[in-house]
Amino acid sequence: MDVKKIARKLNLPESRINELLERRIIKTISDELFYFAKGISGIESGTFIFCKDDIIEIIQGYPKIRRAMVLDACIKNHFASIPVVAVEEKMNGYNVRVCLLKNKIYAITRGGLICPYTTEKARELIGYNFFRDYPHYVLCGEMVGPDNPYVPKNIYNIDSLDFFIFDIQEKNTGYSMSVLKKHALLKEYELNAVRFFGVYSIPDASSKIMQIIKELGAIFHEGVVIKDPEMILPPIKYTCSQSNCIDLEYAFAFYNDYGKDFFFSRVVREGFQSVELNENDIQIKERCCRLGESILKPMINTIKRKKSGKRIVEKVQIRVKNLETAKQFEEHLRNLNIDAIFESPIFINGEYLIKIKKIYQSTNDKTEAVLKGQTW
Amino acid sequence: MDVKKIARKLNLPESRINELLERRIIKTISDELFYFAKGISGIESGTFIFCKDDIIEIIQGYPKIRRAMVLDACIKNHFASIPVVAVEEKMNGYNVRVCLLKNKIYAITRGGLICPYTTEKARELIGYNFFRDYPHYVLCGEMVGPDNPYVPKNIYNIDSLDFFIFDIQEKNTGYSMSVLKKHALLKEYELNAVRFFGVYSIPDASSKIMQIIKELGAIFHEGVVIKDPEMILPPIKYTCSQSNCIDLEYAFAFYNDYGKDFFFSRVVREGFQSVELNENDIQIKERCCRLGESILKPMINTIKRKKSGKRIVEKVQIRVKNLETAKQFEEHLRNLNIDAIFESPIFINGEYLIKIKKIYQSTNDKTEAVLKGQTW
Repeated sequence: MDVKKIARKLNLPESRINELLERRIIKTISDELFYFAKGISGIESGTFIFCKDDIIEIIQGYPKIRRAMVLDACIKNHFASIPVVAVEEKMNGYNVRVCLLKNKIYAITRGGLICPYTTEKARELIGYNFFRDYPHYVLCGEMVGPDNPYVPKNIYNIDSLDFFIFDIQEKNTGYSMSVLKKHALLKEYELNAVRFFGVYSIPDASSKIMQIIKELGAIFHEGVVIKDPEMILPPIKYTCSQSNCIDLEYAFAFYNDYGKDFFFSRVVREGFQSVELNENDIQIKERCCRLGESILKPMINTIKRKKSGKRIVEKVQIRVKNLETAKQFEEHLRNLNIDAIFESPIFINGEYLIKIKKIYQSTNDKTEAVLKGQTW
Repeated sequence: MDVKKIARKLNLPESRINELLERRIIKTISDELFYFAKGISGIESGTFIFCKDDIIEIIQGYPKIRRAMVLDACIKNHFASIPVVAVEEKMNGYNVRVCLLKNKIYAITRGGLICPYTTEKARELIGYNFFRDYPHYVLCGEMVGPDNPYVPKNIYNIDSLDFFIFDIQEKNTGYSMSVLKKHALLKEYELNAVRFFGVYSIPDASSKIMQIIKELGAIFHEGVVIKDPEMILPPIKYTCSQSNCIDLEYAFAFYNDYGKDFFFSRVVREGFQSVELNENDIQIKERCCRLGESILKPMINTIKRKKSGKRIVEKVQIRVKNLETAKQFEEHLRNLNIDAIFESPIFINGEYLIKIKKIYQSTNDKTEAVLKGQTW
């Protein structure tokens, strides 16, 4: 690899690049592909580097969006310097950056790896029209739908998989396009954008957004992202209680594979939301039961499944035009240390549906050991 | 300190003692007192060393008792080599080892420090009769009651504070007396023992214990400890759902000061208990609501308190004969980095009642910041 060229492009000394390579903060995918497995000051985790011959391109890692816990106070605090905020839907899928490398479309996941399945989908769903005119832009969006092998969801009325763009960034700098310009451009190229609720003045925003949150919660959607329309200040996110609880349900089905932080932060959100909504005793009781059920019921099901001799798996699926993509995706999951069993492809309407069982080994092992009498 | 003497007594090389001192695993309280701040192979955390002139005495740290998650399987697995188990109540207070040092009674807390308040109480409650005859024994028990400044509880119908012994160990070796002999000896000296439910055969034990657990749960007591009557195999513990939930209530009132593990392990217990009890949908729903309420309600209260400008504190109290003890106890809490405000003593029935507010700084700070709009 050309350390000198990468160093120049990232504006870091060569010695620093060598150190980051040694510490495996920059990881090598191939002779020409690299990514930041962790963030460092000024460079996000998941930042992707393509470096071949004279070409070097950086796709900045997608920044983590900070979460509002108390909506009203947070909007007034975070956006104190601007008059209005733009509100978009936060969809529940996986975050992908789609861009052109060597004149071909690639889809990069949050972590900084090219996902072969997502790449096949991005080529179908987005196509080359936009990139012919704007090769230096990165389309950042959410892949959602039931054929999503990372976070499958049936809540969006999508048959297979679709891509909803929430951000257009420049290659290298990672600068974001303003919200209105982005929506206009996506409309022009007939590309899907996430739902845009509108622009609200700071004093009005929290009550408007709380209303949106209630409506989204009722249909089990995730929440919103609140943005500086000019995309100078970083955005913040806020989610529905129902979505929190769905996350918990999912995580507690595989209770020993998920981090305790995952759980804890979601519980704390519920507390602050209840206080902000000024809930009465009946509403609090309902929220408590909803929380308790989303924690305990999936765990009880998991324990019962294991007790009856079954394996604890998550069933997901992909749908591909090309079986080679499925093979590459299998390899991709192996690289991510995800233990998955691919069933035989089923040919439907010109595509192959492949069912996949993801195995949660830690939850399997722990549950089995405890059922056999192991102490905690 | 006499490293050579301590090394000989602990059966470790002198160099190892020096290393443990350097790494602050053995910590120095005074010229003659030391304790293990962490456990090492063969020596429990909280092990206490008294070393003066020709005398050296080791009070072994009280071992952590492993927890049964599935009662029936765990009893059959853990106690496979013996025919019967003894069952005692596990009380909810704090674990103290009371022993004679230089002919005076001292009370050592779990961590390995002498607590001046507990020492005053131990001298009153236990007295010297037992120790005159058995100076080489350590009385291990639970300090419980409303005047317990660590874990105050009103569930035991105790006016102030009382000491319930669950184990008699030898100094130095830490060997435990058999269960029946212990209860006989405590009766002889009119010392309080924890409640002894009886001895059960292994096949019967889990159904008998589950019945005890239900009864203890109904009166909000904590649970049981299941022991090899000969005290050769280590004991195991099992607790009531109600007690789990009370713990959670307490911890979530100070949600940012408590470990996420504290929470997680308690939730997992609930899942396994529900499956073992073969609960129906209504019982599961009740358990879920109970769990959810014990998590969210205290957190909501904490957030509301902070919102109304109040400080998040825990109110505890001590009752002392001697004001010097209170002063020493204040110093003791400072050494433990516990932030506490002592109110002026109130003289009642020949004793001083002192109300104490423990301040949970992390929960105070985090709640305040989030209410002011800080992101998570």
